[in-house]
Amino acid sequence: MDRDDIPLIDNATKPTRRGLWKGAAALAPAALLAGAADAATPNRSALRRVVDQQKDETVALLQDWIRNPTIAAESLNIQGGAEYMARLARDSGFQNVEIVQTDGSPGVFATLDAGAPKTVAIYFMYDVKQFNPSEWSSPPLEARLVDNDLGRVVVGRGAVNQKGPETAFLGALRALRAAGRQPPVNLVLVCEGEEEIGSPHFHQIVRRPDIMARVQQCVGVFIPSAWQDPTTGGVSVNLGAKGVIECELVASGERWGRGPTRDIHSSTKAMVDAPVWRLVHALNTLVSEDGNTPTIDGWFENVRPLTERERELIRLNARNQSEADWKQRNGVSRFIDDATWPQALERLASQPTANIEGLVAGYTGPGGMTVLPHRGVAKLDFRLVPNQTRAEAEAKLRAHLDARGFNDVEVNVSGGYDPTETAETSAIVQAQLAVYRRFNAPATLNPRLAGSWPGAVFTAAPVSLPAGQFGLGHGNGAHAPNEYFLIDSNNPRVQGLTGAVMGFIDILYELAR
Amino acid sequence: MDRDDIPLIDNATKPTRRGLWKGAAALAPAALLAGAADAATPNRSALRRVVDQQKDETVALLQDWIRNPTIAAESLNIQGGAEYMARLARDSGFQNVEIVQTDGSPGVFATLDAGAPKTVAIYFMYDVKQFNPSEWSSPPLEARLVDNDLGRVVVGRGAVNQKGPETAFLGALRALRAAGRQPPVNLVLVCEGEEEIGSPHFHQIVRRPDIMARVQQCVGVFIPSAWQDPTTGGVSVNLGAKGVIECELVASGERWGRGPTRDIHSSTKAMVDAPVWRLVHALNTLVSEDGNTPTIDGWFENVRPLTERERELIRLNARNQSEADWKQRNGVSRFIDDATWPQALERLASQPTANIEGLVAGYTGPGGMTVLPHRGVAKLDFRLVPNQTRAEAEAKLRAHLDARGFNDVEVNVSGGYDPTETAETSAIVQAQLAVYRRFNAPATLNPRLAGSWPGAVFTAAPVSLPAGQFGLGHGNGAHAPNEYFLIDSNNPRVQGLTGAVMGFIDILYELAR
Repeated sequence: MDRDDIPLIDNATKPTRRGLWKGAAALAPAALLAGAADAATPNRSALRRVVDQQKDETVALLQDWIRNPTIAAESLNIQGGAEYMARLARDSGFQNVEIVQTDGSPGVFATLDAGAPKTVAIYFMYDVKQFNPSEWSSPPLEARLVDNDLGRVVVGRGAVNQKGPETAFLGALRALRAAGRQPPVNLVLVCEGEEEIGSPHFHQIVRRPDIMARVQQCVGVFIPSAWQDPTTGGVSVNLGAKGVIECELVASGERWGRGPTRDIHSSTKAMVDAPVWRLVHALNTLVSEDGNTPTIDGWFENVRPLTERERELIRLNARNQSEADWKQRNGVSRFIDDATWPQALERLASQPTANIEGLVAGYTGPGGMTVLPHRGVAKLDFRLVPNQTRAEAEAKLRAHLDARGFNDVEVNVSGGYDPTETAETSAIVQAQLAVYRRFNAPATLNPRLAGSWPGAVFTAAPVSLPAGQFGLGHGNGAHAPNEYFLIDSNNPRVQGLTGAVMGFIDILYELAR
Repeated sequence: MDRDDIPLIDNATKPTRRGLWKGAAALAPAALLAGAADAATPNRSALRRVVDQQKDETVALLQDWIRNPTIAAESLNIQGGAEYMARLARDSGFQNVEIVQTDGSPGVFATLDAGAPKTVAIYFMYDVKQFNPSEWSSPPLEARLVDNDLGRVVVGRGAVNQKGPETAFLGALRALRAAGRQPPVNLVLVCEGEEEIGSPHFHQIVRRPDIMARVQQCVGVFIPSAWQDPTTGGVSVNLGAKGVIECELVASGERWGRGPTRDIHSSTKAMVDAPVWRLVHALNTLVSEDGNTPTIDGWFENVRPLTERERELIRLNARNQSEADWKQRNGVSRFIDDATWPQALERLASQPTANIEGLVAGYTGPGGMTVLPHRGVAKLDFRLVPNQTRAEAEAKLRAHLDARGFNDVEVNVSGGYDPTETAETSAIVQAQLAVYRRFNAPATLNPRLAGSWPGAVFTAAPVSLPAGQFGLGHGNGAHAPNEYFLIDSNNPRVQGLTGAVMGFIDILYELAR
């Protein structure tokens, strides 16, 4: 749903990580020090040579995938993208690969039985965000190799979100095979082609009884990622994420039965009701006077306060991160209520939000136009914290408007996720920390990502699996022009493709322990 | 200011006239019956032959003018348009023609001394509205002659707003000259090239001391028009018009000092203030809960109630006009407060309005985008009634926002007019009624146009001149694609070009009486 779920880590919370890593060891001491030294991937240097030898082939694999985009929002290459994904899985060693139909785009379900005691689930998305080629300095579908100040990168739509990291993960399986090894864990792969439109049918894949049975046997699930800070190499380990509902509030003459049913001359306002004023009045009831607290009836009923551990992690993060840097990057000079930095970060993790993403009504061009619009639209997102749910939020928003007589104001929910949480003690989190430590990538334990991703499909009942993002390496520009994925890194703290592939090998061994 | 000032007569209030004409004689009995029979233009049939002979030449004049557009909003052909206007005036018999510089586009001032006892002022606009050629079925600058169900028309930008009627007026002067006659009145012509952007500098022309001295000697002023109803031939005689201010309310992080100074990820809403919510809250204070009454401090202080005569005219109009027709045309099923038809028309004439023309903030494309916008804009127009003034309205809006702490919310007024009024007993109104009667064009006395035009430049002090719109003939599509002006009419009730030219000749003789 939250189109910026993954990029968010890079964009909105990157500053949370940047400048933080000097004191990283102090950040999450329990996690960082637990059982680190004895973790190891057997014959790691031999594997690394294989990975290095396969690098050009892995790059070519990524380039070809970028050149074959699937865009759910444009219904582009849906079936073809699923078949491509299935072939990739098959070619990378998955023994059973199935295209799974849904009420929307098909997904892919694949398994790799390595005869191992443990099984790990992997979540892939095969779709990419829309793009406007005219905004790109390198064509978005050419996947060119380009040198920038970070090193050599592949530029293309989906490079980091998520084909680059996913290709690196598949590269890990290919390298193991080339080295004559079975993966140390069995794998269950669930892929969707609608992540960029909010994963509206992903639950139909994960909850298909036979698929769910396999997924539930896993020790955890992660989506391959590559969000190392380009300077420090730092990464976030997220213990959860806020949920979200994204919707349009629409007031219209058609639905209201008052006001016009098309834009008419504004002079008629003296005798005709105005749907846009109705929209303004309805919006006005949704938040406090300062615009910062949702005032929807019962909204905070199920909000769970932060735990002491969550507060502790936030205090650590606040201490180690530059407030000035965050503010500068976001063009913000003051926080809500002039909050201090730790207070602001506590709000970020703990507070549900009501946000207006956009307003569209009547004449929107330059200057004015004397019309009385028949329709006004507010695009909203509401971030949810545990134990709020998407269904609860939708119902309460509707009930709140109805109770105030705004029955005619439409609430068109385009998508959303429940909040998601994964325990710090889970194998998936501990394995991430162990591998990051091995790469000297300073990891921050983030109690809750303020953005959203479809993790709740896994973490919530009935699947109930620990879930997260994992990956070494770096890329940027998700949902933006000139998206890239780092192949050869100039900065020893930041991994290129080989390091990214090795990271995936390492975490599989770590999870096998 | 009100970009739809003249078209309004055709668009928004046309239904007020349509279906009305059956009972037209009963509508404004005093006006319609006063001194009608004895009015006459000497040797009218000889003049009409001249006008007919010149018709092709007049059409060619109009076509050439359309092919040379001036668009103030695009700074297109400003100086050239003024020079073109000056040449047109000179070629049509004005003896003294001067391009008048202003702080914006130049105007044109011209005089024609006919040695007559009386002088009449004429108001011209030489600019036209912007256009998008792709929306036109006949190219907007080709001024093609096209046959439609009304007859033969010239299609082009400015055809009816206002080059067609203005060319017809110049045709009247040319016909008189060709017939060897002086006009029966002296003429003072004031032209502006910024009508479509709200006449921001027109007062600099009209109030230049020497120009004002000439204008003040006139019995009245009119702008040539051509808004006969295409079915009935009916016309409105407006005794005034509402004023207006058009403005943008802008809330932004930059000005507020809170919230972001660029669009940032919406997850940050938990810690960052939202300028768009601030805009919503500011807007919410401007009108009553039902959105229908401005609640700006002191807004009604100077509002003058309708006079008994105004109420009488409205009652007459309500009786003779189809409510169902109006509602159908405007896509409206109910009026404010479920008002009856006469109540609604009384509101239309008497009530000041606060209208949202448009809302623009953040992401406005299809679907959603998880941003926290740094800026929100509401495009507003406020219609003013006597004795409100534009300056008063601007000051009160600003003071109202300031009093509520919204000092940072910008009010960017792009233009506006004071309300304007002209007495029913004035020569300019009585002459219009007399000429319309001669053409059997049923005329409605409209106490106040709900739209706006720059008439107050003339009617208010220091100029203090009766002002109105006048013209036979028909056109449509002002500010819209496929604007046209009728040359040859299929409907005997509706005048073509020759009738329009004769109407201008007749009104000059009428005003000379």
